[in-house]
Amino acid sequence: MSVHNFFAGPAILPQEVLKEASESAWRYQDHGLSILEMSHRSKPLTAIFEETEALIHELLNIPDDYKVLFLTGGASSQFYMVPMNLLNENETAGYVDTGTWSTKAIKEAKLFGNVKVIASSEDKNFNYIPKNYEVPTDLKYLHITSNNTIYGTQMQSFADCPVRMVIDMSSDIFSRPFDITSFDLVYAGAQKNLGPAGVTLVIVKKDILEKVERKIPSMLNYMTHVKKDSTFNTPPVYPIYVSLLTLRWIKKMGGVKVMQERNQAKADLLYGEIDRNPMFYGTTAVEDRSKMNVCFLLHDESKAEAFEAAAKDAKCVGIKGHRSVGGYRASTYNALPIESVQVLVDVMQNFEKQHG
Amino acid sequence: MSVHNFFAGPAILPQEVLKEASESAWRYQDHGLSILEMSHRSKPLTAIFEETEALIHELLNIPDDYKVLFLTGGASSQFYMVPMNLLNENETAGYVDTGTWSTKAIKEAKLFGNVKVIASSEDKNFNYIPKNYEVPTDLKYLHITSNNTIYGTQMQSFADCPVRMVIDMSSDIFSRPFDITSFDLVYAGAQKNLGPAGVTLVIVKKDILEKVERKIPSMLNYMTHVKKDSTFNTPPVYPIYVSLLTLRWIKKMGGVKVMQERNQAKADLLYGEIDRNPMFYGTTAVEDRSKMNVCFLLHDESKAEAFEAAAKDAKCVGIKGHRSVGGYRASTYNALPIESVQVLVDVMQNFEKQHG
Repeated sequence: MSVHNFFAGPAILPQEVLKEASESAWRYQDHGLSILEMSHRSKPLTAIFEETEALIHELLNIPDDYKVLFLTGGASSQFYMVPMNLLNENETAGYVDTGTWSTKAIKEAKLFGNVKVIASSEDKNFNYIPKNYEVPTDLKYLHITSNNTIYGTQMQSFADCPVRMVIDMSSDIFSRPFDITSFDLVYAGAQKNLGPAGVTLVIVKKDILEKVERKIPSMLNYMTHVKKDSTFNTPPVYPIYVSLLTLRWIKKMGGVKVMQERNQAKADLLYGEIDRNPMFYGTTAVEDRSKMNVCFLLHDESKAEAFEAAAKDAKCVGIKGHRSVGGYRASTYNALPIESVQVLVDVMQNFEKQHG
Repeated sequence: MSVHNFFAGPAILPQEVLKEASESAWRYQDHGLSILEMSHRSKPLTAIFEETEALIHELLNIPDDYKVLFLTGGASSQFYMVPMNLLNENETAGYVDTGTWSTKAIKEAKLFGNVKVIASSEDKNFNYIPKNYEVPTDLKYLHITSNNTIYGTQMQSFADCPVRMVIDMSSDIFSRPFDITSFDLVYAGAQKNLGPAGVTLVIVKKDILEKVERKIPSMLNYMTHVKKDSTFNTPPVYPIYVSLLTLRWIKKMGGVKVMQERNQAKADLLYGEIDRNPMFYGTTAVEDRSKMNVCFLLHDESKAEAFEAAAKDAKCVGIKGHRSVGGYRASTYNALPIESVQVLVDVMQNFEKQHG
């Protein structure tokens, strides 16, 4: 591989997935047609949707009282669909504010009911995960964000919670095992570990639905999609298909447990270098470091241009940090090989030799 | 081309579009990456979004007081977004009911305000387009559907209207020239003449926005996307890209006027055969026949199996009619070559010789 892809999302996909995705965009199997021009009601495409749903159940060990949905509009649409479907106007939902995306989720939820921010790390520019907060037992649900792409923090485990839990797992789903039964609703935009932009995964416990009083447009009611297996209208066929290819790859590699081991090894390598190399420092609390998005800064920002030129020469792309944090962010999603991390580490070491 | 693709949508795309779409899913230009794994904030992708928007302006001759948006959720999401953004609870919108999709649009609009069905062809299973109806001048807007994919009817022209007009052009946009200034909002799912499933085109006159009183979630407010050039959140990158390739193809072919001529020639050929061949008959009023979806039935349904086997032998796929009409539907979108229509006509003629 010539280019080392550290983009935060849309993000790197496995080479064999891209190869097959490319072939199917020209001709899908022996159908004589591109997968882009086939009816979503045709048998080959119905088979794709069914296999994708089944594989997600298998890889995440999801019980039958949950439904896997393929929606659109990204996690940003779940910010309002969750409270629209789960929260009555006189009820209260709790939110843990761990950065830009949860802040946006809080803003949208306020349109539908009462919102209580249970904990926040805004006091330190979201560079840590709040812990040991009290969760009032009268909340309709508690909303958390497992990984914060922008700030590079990640919940390493999920505390027991006395109320229903909703979780935005956009940037770390399929990166590690987790107990789905701790949650009533899980959502994730596809474009990190799952597939290309254009499909949003929702996993919902069916018995929590249809309990609110408001009238909801058909397309925004989760139950519409539960009843129609995500084909109430034309689903985003190709993004779902490429997600299926990625899920097959995860399974072939050994499942989410193996993804976790791979991601741990990459994180150890890169954070190890950040901690060792006197030119750089990490931006987050060490215990909350994300294994998906590794944020770091230069001690001497006047050397930024030289470091960026060296990274570019080594064909490392997408390492520019988000403006909220600055510096650098190397995203190390499932599909990123450790060899790419090693290339970046080599760049950092050479940079130290030349500029340290 | 070995297979003749008459699917109603997702539907046929030009061969050269599919070729380039396939190549870019493996490696995009000289970036060393698949277009599926590149950040939507990267320069090459920003350039794609800008060119797509500009090309739509050019091909449809859209003035600058309109904004072209790339959303998701299909036309089905526009059914509620239109009234949510344009209709106050105490106001009335008019709808012309020409079949399944407009019926659904009416259902969703009722959640937001008063709805008056101005005209309907439900009395004859939507096999014609209502005409010469009165439009009350106190309507907030009138909603029409230009082409009815399921029933095979199409508005051949658009009457002057004393109120704002909103039009669902999902299945015939870019198939013929039209005067955009007759409309305040045009929407279309991509998966007929524009691209693959996964992106929804909205063209909106900017000064009609932000006039309603209700609070609207950020993602559902057109103005959010106007202000952010459709990148408020991660847009469906690949469906937009393939749409751009299709738009370039339309331009290269000579624009929507040439598309209209090609579509007219295909329609003349196929409807001509339906009218000539004593085995078949058309299902719609002759003056309202769609140039996109040609619906026809066998006089003797006991011969259906034989006809379908002959069509299959000739590699004509996707001609099964929708269950609401039965029989056959051959969709003849922009990308379908007249040679494919000729193959189907040959099948019909041979069928007459053998079974007539």
